[in-house]
Amino acid sequence: MTDFFDKHQERLQQALEAAQTRAAWSPFNDSPSRKIHGDAVDHGLAAFQARLHKPFEIDQPGVISYMEVAEISPYTQEPLGITYPQVNVDVLHKGAREAIPAWRDAGVRARLGACMEMVERLNKNSFESAHALMHTTGQSFPMAFAGGGPNAQERGLEALAYAYQAMTSVVTRATWERAFGSTQIKLQKNYRLMPRGIALVIACATFPTWNAYPAMFANLATGNAVVVKPHPLTILPMALAVEICRNTLRDAGFDPNLVTLVVDTPAEPIAKELVTRHDIAIVDFTGSAHFGRWIEENARGKPVFTETAGVNSVVLDSTNDLKGLAQTLGMSLCLYSKQMCTSPQNVYIPRQGFRNGETEMSFDETAQTLVASINGLLSDNARAGGVLGAIQNENILNLVARAQELAPSRAKLLRAAEPYAHPDFPNARTRTPVILGLDISDNDLYAREWFGPVIHFIAADSPEQALQQAASDAKQFGAINSYAYSTDEKFIERAQDAFGDAGANLSINLIGLMPLTYAAAFSDYHVSGLNPAGNATLTDASFVSGRFRITQSRILAI
Amino acid sequence: MTDFFDKHQERLQQALEAAQTRAAWSPFNDSPSRKIHGDAVDHGLAAFQARLHKPFEIDQPGVISYMEVAEISPYTQEPLGITYPQVNVDVLHKGAREAIPAWRDAGVRARLGACMEMVERLNKNSFESAHALMHTTGQSFPMAFAGGGPNAQERGLEALAYAYQAMTSVVTRATWERAFGSTQIKLQKNYRLMPRGIALVIACATFPTWNAYPAMFANLATGNAVVVKPHPLTILPMALAVEICRNTLRDAGFDPNLVTLVVDTPAEPIAKELVTRHDIAIVDFTGSAHFGRWIEENARGKPVFTETAGVNSVVLDSTNDLKGLAQTLGMSLCLYSKQMCTSPQNVYIPRQGFRNGETEMSFDETAQTLVASINGLLSDNARAGGVLGAIQNENILNLVARAQELAPSRAKLLRAAEPYAHPDFPNARTRTPVILGLDISDNDLYAREWFGPVIHFIAADSPEQALQQAASDAKQFGAINSYAYSTDEKFIERAQDAFGDAGANLSINLIGLMPLTYAAAFSDYHVSGLNPAGNATLTDASFVSGRFRITQSRILAI
Repeated sequence: MTDFFDKHQERLQQALEAAQTRAAWSPFNDSPSRKIHGDAVDHGLAAFQARLHKPFEIDQPGVISYMEVAEISPYTQEPLGITYPQVNVDVLHKGAREAIPAWRDAGVRARLGACMEMVERLNKNSFESAHALMHTTGQSFPMAFAGGGPNAQERGLEALAYAYQAMTSVVTRATWERAFGSTQIKLQKNYRLMPRGIALVIACATFPTWNAYPAMFANLATGNAVVVKPHPLTILPMALAVEICRNTLRDAGFDPNLVTLVVDTPAEPIAKELVTRHDIAIVDFTGSAHFGRWIEENARGKPVFTETAGVNSVVLDSTNDLKGLAQTLGMSLCLYSKQMCTSPQNVYIPRQGFRNGETEMSFDETAQTLVASINGLLSDNARAGGVLGAIQNENILNLVARAQELAPSRAKLLRAAEPYAHPDFPNARTRTPVILGLDISDNDLYAREWFGPVIHFIAADSPEQALQQAASDAKQFGAINSYAYSTDEKFIERAQDAFGDAGANLSINLIGLMPLTYAAAFSDYHVSGLNPAGNATLTDASFVSGRFRITQSRILAI
Repeated sequence: MTDFFDKHQERLQQALEAAQTRAAWSPFNDSPSRKIHGDAVDHGLAAFQARLHKPFEIDQPGVISYMEVAEISPYTQEPLGITYPQVNVDVLHKGAREAIPAWRDAGVRARLGACMEMVERLNKNSFESAHALMHTTGQSFPMAFAGGGPNAQERGLEALAYAYQAMTSVVTRATWERAFGSTQIKLQKNYRLMPRGIALVIACATFPTWNAYPAMFANLATGNAVVVKPHPLTILPMALAVEICRNTLRDAGFDPNLVTLVVDTPAEPIAKELVTRHDIAIVDFTGSAHFGRWIEENARGKPVFTETAGVNSVVLDSTNDLKGLAQTLGMSLCLYSKQMCTSPQNVYIPRQGFRNGETEMSFDETAQTLVASINGLLSDNARAGGVLGAIQNENILNLVARAQELAPSRAKLLRAAEPYAHPDFPNARTRTPVILGLDISDNDLYAREWFGPVIHFIAADSPEQALQQAASDAKQFGAINSYAYSTDEKFIERAQDAFGDAGANLSINLIGLMPLTYAAAFSDYHVSGLNPAGNATLTDASFVSGRFRITQSRILAI
């Protein structure tokens, strides 16, 4: 039995400080460069390849058989061919339940140490994980490495820091004394931190680790067992994480059944059954707004933490750097084929003129500038591959087709979607973005999420009108992020107020190599809980505080 | 406009410290003695009397008329005759909604100052409030003063301390900088605390202020508006609180519609309609476990904080002070006619013998000792009045009658319930406790709450069997507190484990003038959330952290 706390104590202290100041801090390098990582690059690829076409063995309770699943690489469009444990959930949960008391009684320090070690080992395995993410989500390799590796691990660390802070702020003992009538009563009080039980973490198809790690670690740190239910199309990245967590638990002297895996298929989904089971005490969910809402409404009194999606808008008022704006915005509209919950979708352009320096540009001129920037970005297939990646699943292709069919009757086709030839994977499922020109009156078309490469350029009477519409849609239909460009300080203030009220985080005048969609652990609060795009925030105190409870005993002190 | 923060800053600091150490701290004296309070004693009574038989005027929006309600004094069994505003809830909520932005934007300091001033003024009005509580709940005057006044106000202060801590731990600004590729990106980030909206606080019939104050103040401090919906039988104490909060808000320069009152009658309850309204963002509830469960299951994604009730047990293993035990336990079984969520109900007595020092006492001997102690306590009507108070409503009398009818077929009648003559109020609705002798196999009878003066003495094979049964019932049917008497350290440890797992706070070997049911603000965590007796704790971080959210904006720093 190894106590990992001392090993990671300095990192934990840094994480606590970063979570407090919310300044930049990254313990891990998110570049996949061979110069930094050396042989790990090749070992990761080899490890990934060795997983294919065989069972992914997990020695967890209740395994009935190894089942075929629906994982298909968006890059090869071939099945990964990995089979996963099919489990008897009753038996699995019995094992999870039995693992909890020793984990709980080990205390905050032992649990934090083990969890910090898990993060460390996840980081060491970032290359294998990146290939697994790439060939399930369709992300480009650099994004799969950065976003699904170090950036996700850091969000996990952040959750650990908040959990540590929440738990250590509860004293374990107090002596209490006061007079009742003529006598003095002195009590010795003991306070215990208690987990809730088995926590279900439902991961998404496109960015599974980034959202699931915080949930897993918030649950584990507070003493709960975690059952991971990956999206049926994106299982491998979460199976790898489960394996690493189980091995770490074993090395730390704990029961590995604190972390287990339940898989399903699109044909026979089991999430609803799991969510409503009596013995599931906490639910974390990342995925569609529709199912997120179902969970919020049907978990019936359980703590539920959701991160879904919404309608992220860009409001253009004015700029002094049109070229930089077009490059930055164009890149972020294309990145990972707009399959991110933070991707902008609705770009509002003032009908009367978008002011670039001293020049007023018409809607058409502005739209053409943005389209030209995107076309330039995607003109080279090698570059396009790095930006767009691949399309996660066939439904997204169908969505793109449906969007395109709106032109010419309902929309103007500003840019047509088309397959592009991926430089490394000739069979990749690809599509460049379709861009539709709409009017602000076409609210029925744009006021919902089009998950995938579907972009709306929306003509508004004024930036003010655009702002009100975008904020109102965010409030009503959900939004995680919003974006505005303006040289007018008053407009910026109004945008902060409007999107603040709507609970959609606002990025203002961002130009440069940072993707608009980037959210930094320890600094960017992800999802506000103030609109339908989810009810939980990565990471604030409320993300962790309800995952454990406090019981007390008090005894008369003689 | 007055800033009250400085006035109360020292008290706030003391509250923060007490909440952290959980040692004893009371800013207010909970004795109603004239020596301490002087003329306030008489002024409070006069103020209460002046409220009777007239409208309770509140200048809140949407008042349609003044309605008759069902408030009847348990002491006189006469209607209080006070009418309350009947409101158009849409109009009322519009007013509440409009009051929020200025309250939100005033910031933590201004809100905390105003809330601390509300607590101060509630304290100054404790005598009027105590008469109002007495003549609605049926509590004795000393209990109505202490429990519904200073002790309740301190729980409100405690919630304010936690809210202050949660909000001030979020920084408002950060500068963030990192390299992307060859360029450095520097962002100025701003974080805003945002309320959720209108918070509904549903108070209970028997201890309204003690649970409602924490909810009201947690909501107000975090920027929300509060709609108070008192129990239809116990409106006046909450109406007084609403009036004081509204006046304080006005004096602090805020819109009084941040605190409003909605009343109903048993014939036409409106709680369900309010809970499920789209514009209610948070629900706090104290009352029956049945309705609490309904709210948890039907609030559909809203944060819900419940404090209900359950089956509180006493497990007798051994003692060295039988007399002290019998006095303390007897008093707590009788206090306020067992109309408290912390009252013990099920007293497990080992069949084979309860060890008192070196003596083994049979079930009958132990039971007789306890009954004799209770009979002694109640033998004097003046003393009985101070202990038992009155019965809140007729349903409780019916429950007592139903319990008594279980003997002799299902239970042995160890003590019969009967009216007693209250020394001051000849028409008081009174009943001394019925005590039934049951066997541990009679689980169908005792494994549910009998709210009112119904006590079970349960014969168990052993203290160990009793412990397992009591803990299991707590887990399954809910319990807030539990009680054990033992001279065996191993047994005490097992009791701590068993009730800890069940989430029922445990008091061990308490003997003396402190009522077993007493829960101290800043020290005793009330309700664990680990069993059906409620999901929220007074007060831990999770009681406040979800009541506000964080939105952010980030702007490129040049």
